[in-house]
Amino acid sequence: MTDTLVNMRDIRFVLYEMLDIETLTQYEYFKEHSKETFDSTLNAAYQVARDVYWPAYTDMDKFGVKLDAAAQKTAVAPSMIKIWQTAKEGCWFGATAPAKWGGQQMPLTIYAGTRLIFDAANTAAQMYISSAAGGAHLILSYGTEDLKNLYLERLFTGEWGSTMCLTEPQAGSSLSDVKTTAVKASDGDHYLITGTKCFISNGDHEMAPNIVHPVLARISGAPAGVKGISLFVVPKYRVNPDGSLGQSNDVTTAGVEHKLGLRGNATCTLSFGDNGGCHGRLLGEPNQGLAYMFQLMNSARIGTGLQAIGVATNAYQHALQYAKERLQGREFTAKDPTAAQIPIIKHADVKRMLLTQKATTEGVFALLAYSFFLSDHARWNTNPEEKQKAALLLELLTPVCKAYGSEAAYESIVQAIQCYGGYGFSEDFPLAQMVRDTKVFPIYEGTNFMQAADLLGRKINMKKGAAFAAIVGEITKTVTQANEIAELKDLSVKLAAALRELGETTKHLGAVALGGDIELYMYSAPYYLKSFSTLVICWLFLWQAIASHKALRSKPREADKNYYTGKLATARFYYNHEIPHMRANMDIMKSNDRTAIEFQEDWF
Amino acid sequence: MTDTLVNMRDIRFVLYEMLDIETLTQYEYFKEHSKETFDSTLNAAYQVARDVYWPAYTDMDKFGVKLDAAAQKTAVAPSMIKIWQTAKEGCWFGATAPAKWGGQQMPLTIYAGTRLIFDAANTAAQMYISSAAGGAHLILSYGTEDLKNLYLERLFTGEWGSTMCLTEPQAGSSLSDVKTTAVKASDGDHYLITGTKCFISNGDHEMAPNIVHPVLARISGAPAGVKGISLFVVPKYRVNPDGSLGQSNDVTTAGVEHKLGLRGNATCTLSFGDNGGCHGRLLGEPNQGLAYMFQLMNSARIGTGLQAIGVATNAYQHALQYAKERLQGREFTAKDPTAAQIPIIKHADVKRMLLTQKATTEGVFALLAYSFFLSDHARWNTNPEEKQKAALLLELLTPVCKAYGSEAAYESIVQAIQCYGGYGFSEDFPLAQMVRDTKVFPIYEGTNFMQAADLLGRKINMKKGAAFAAIVGEITKTVTQANEIAELKDLSVKLAAALRELGETTKHLGAVALGGDIELYMYSAPYYLKSFSTLVICWLFLWQAIASHKALRSKPREADKNYYTGKLATARFYYNHEIPHMRANMDIMKSNDRTAIEFQEDWF
Repeated sequence: MTDTLVNMRDIRFVLYEMLDIETLTQYEYFKEHSKETFDSTLNAAYQVARDVYWPAYTDMDKFGVKLDAAAQKTAVAPSMIKIWQTAKEGCWFGATAPAKWGGQQMPLTIYAGTRLIFDAANTAAQMYISSAAGGAHLILSYGTEDLKNLYLERLFTGEWGSTMCLTEPQAGSSLSDVKTTAVKASDGDHYLITGTKCFISNGDHEMAPNIVHPVLARISGAPAGVKGISLFVVPKYRVNPDGSLGQSNDVTTAGVEHKLGLRGNATCTLSFGDNGGCHGRLLGEPNQGLAYMFQLMNSARIGTGLQAIGVATNAYQHALQYAKERLQGREFTAKDPTAAQIPIIKHADVKRMLLTQKATTEGVFALLAYSFFLSDHARWNTNPEEKQKAALLLELLTPVCKAYGSEAAYESIVQAIQCYGGYGFSEDFPLAQMVRDTKVFPIYEGTNFMQAADLLGRKINMKKGAAFAAIVGEITKTVTQANEIAELKDLSVKLAAALRELGETTKHLGAVALGGDIELYMYSAPYYLKSFSTLVICWLFLWQAIASHKALRSKPREADKNYYTGKLATARFYYNHEIPHMRANMDIMKSNDRTAIEFQEDWF
Repeated sequence: MTDTLVNMRDIRFVLYEMLDIETLTQYEYFKEHSKETFDSTLNAAYQVARDVYWPAYTDMDKFGVKLDAAAQKTAVAPSMIKIWQTAKEGCWFGATAPAKWGGQQMPLTIYAGTRLIFDAANTAAQMYISSAAGGAHLILSYGTEDLKNLYLERLFTGEWGSTMCLTEPQAGSSLSDVKTTAVKASDGDHYLITGTKCFISNGDHEMAPNIVHPVLARISGAPAGVKGISLFVVPKYRVNPDGSLGQSNDVTTAGVEHKLGLRGNATCTLSFGDNGGCHGRLLGEPNQGLAYMFQLMNSARIGTGLQAIGVATNAYQHALQYAKERLQGREFTAKDPTAAQIPIIKHADVKRMLLTQKATTEGVFALLAYSFFLSDHARWNTNPEEKQKAALLLELLTPVCKAYGSEAAYESIVQAIQCYGGYGFSEDFPLAQMVRDTKVFPIYEGTNFMQAADLLGRKINMKKGAAFAAIVGEITKTVTQANEIAELKDLSVKLAAALRELGETTKHLGAVALGGDIELYMYSAPYYLKSFSTLVICWLFLWQAIASHKALRSKPREADKNYYTGKLATARFYYNHEIPHMRANMDIMKSNDRTAIEFQEDWF
């Protein structure tokens, strides 16, 4: 086992050398920050992750979550309580929040780095922390001054917790079927909430004296479908006008899930208003709830990518360490059976598995950090055109972060397990828990098909294809830069070809849709998402390759030279192994295969 | 949930309509059998599986295995004890064994069907049953009359259990590093065994009064490496010359593994001869142990494929049932949000996931049944040429059964979980356990890289490429047949092209090896195994398509018509979705990419 949870060198490379995040300090919101504060934040995160988060990893899994239904108390592991305390003391809850509300005003791009570190160390724990801020950001965006005053500082400082309550037993992917109701109270400006929400992460615990639930519900008389969904702030305990805690708000923890993984996190079924006494405050305008919730949801989707890649990064570091230490076998050409066995990292197939993990975790982390970088620009850039472009690119890449991130991470962890051999199947080593923990990421926060449908059904064509045109522009810029560098010419030529082919495939699908075969168009979505994701990761690797190539020319010290050389080879490995499969997925789309669509239920 | 564990219709189709197993009754060994005995065996297996195996599935997982180290007692769940009893009463231990030793003399091809059923219902349980027979077959092949008389009937009737003891802490994939020693006793014809074996499935339990361990060990003075490994029969309790049980044989259960899955099976660390009193009887000739063990190992490799596809088949049946019942969402084109939700099986993407599972489980089961069919022919065919061809094809396909079977099954179960949505992540549904159980199959019985290396490094070239030539011949025969059928022409053309391209890739790799780049050649092995596997499954689907097409022309009843039509569409789906990726893997091989091989340890 190793206590190297992530490769800090790679995080710094992406943030400083690829994205050049120091440029963000030009914005008023970040003006108190500098490379020094960024550095110390990253270092502090690593220390907390290693000293407090990681030691609780298996412990929380074993303890699970214990609901005493009669007493309505949900117990988490003591090691988790310590994490909450530590996060509170370290001001990690409000890392990106305004100073006015107790936050640190850090760029989201830095948060991408710290989240990767925390998620690598203990993602079930990190969920509790990040969700408190998630609820707060909703109130910050859409709440009245009164709501802000009552809730923001408490959530951003970790005094209280938060959740997101969307799913109901009959309304998972189909949110238009949300049934929870809200009836305007006759005696105040609140609503009476009634309904059941399930699969609610961080749903209940005793770490904070109050938990604030953003809840999707229908105001009586609202239109059917998504147009009639509103968003409410529903605390576990009512909050008096002076901010003090009032009585219990009739929110019942009806059950906790027994899960394959993330066992340290309380995934609850919550029942609102069993006794008719659940008060909720409307957030923003009526019937706009789903649109508001998507602010949180979009950020949670990138967050899911970070969770997945965080765990995969730690798994990769474990596999790497194990491969250096485990002696087994000899070179293929060795004839002497009495010669000493060699570390398995010397076997080409083990290197292939490690390199797959390295390429996946580094490639997707670059995407996630870039996405939050876009988010910082979309929020603070004062040039309307750049601001708009950043927002478009962010919208386009969000489903990629979630779906590709979660799938690639899972496959990466499977490779890490394979490196461990039989020990990978043992719960005495942390890899088994890692593969369990990550199985939910392709499912929650919108299944990966929902992401694919979002990408192909909405994002590619939105604003007359402006987002797609924007990314084509960015990729072309990088290709042009790389074309000037002889050593990167092979990569730039391959990327240009892949871009052209994806453009053709996109046109092909457009013609399918125009021809009226919407079913086939949407059927293609998962293949499109995979192809598009590979293209994007290839692009980001070329960007990284340019930065590495530049750095190598400035005669770096030995460790850096190894890092940059490794990065170039990793980029090349990803191109050579992934583009052929990207092409396969495009071939599938271009074949217009309707077999699955036409397959009848009776044939199964 | 469903209690449909497997599709019996598909098992019957493969056995009767595709392989025409009634022809096996021509052999003396099977002469007591007929379609009637085959049918009643399959039906009896299903009944036992559904009534006894399946109800114990989650129970055994929760109970786990409890070792009382001081008392040297290893407890399994009571529901497992009942399974053992039932298997004993139903004569399932010796299904394929000679009647002389208490067996049923069933063809292995029928055993493929019953194993699929048992593995679908409860593979951790089935391991105990099949391993008893595994050890017995070794003694049957290589034992003296004395050993046969002492052990065979007891093992084939489930009176005693058995294992296979290969792995040691320092010798997993590298069996040449086995250290366990055997010293000829001065006072008898036995050896004194000393050493530690780990990851021993079915290693210890109280279901049988004795457990017989086939153990790989080195006789003092034996050559180093694989050439100095011998095979010993080492019982937990010594066996007196009259067959009665003697004293404890100094075999200690040093520990049981805490595993991700297969928790109901006792995976043990066994210590032999801690007190110098562990007696072993040599099986066959000295220093031939590894070759002998490979008889068991090869059959265990096909067995691993059956385990993996068994679980995947059950997962698929669950996903199918769930998809028919779960209401969620509406058609893409539906505009009315108040319309009733539809069963998710109506969504094309869910059909795609179900069809992927159907194609995987049916395609690989056909391969596994065909492999055991080859095994029956290799054993009993009296025509030396046909016998030899069957043996060659079997050798060629064994690594495919194990590696492709285990990987495709795992991916299939991941798709089943995705069909379940959030409930797939819940341990209150059986899918979570299924994905845990199957994670070991790519690892044990020789990692999947070992299988790939076996295929490309040994099997493809053995006997001057005779095995490869044999399969090319078989595939070509099927293509020729299908060419005559207009409705199958698209498939036969695609298969012929895939065969040609794989031939070219094989030549390409041959040239790489001849050029001296053995490292690149062996690096290609996993890609080769994947490509080769897709080709083989495509071939078996074409074979099945021909049989289905023929059956459809004889105006079958409605249910059969649906089955055959579904089979044809499943074949087409597999072709259209898998051949593009097969081509991608061949492109990777043809690119001669050495990035991973050249990647330096310092670059990670």
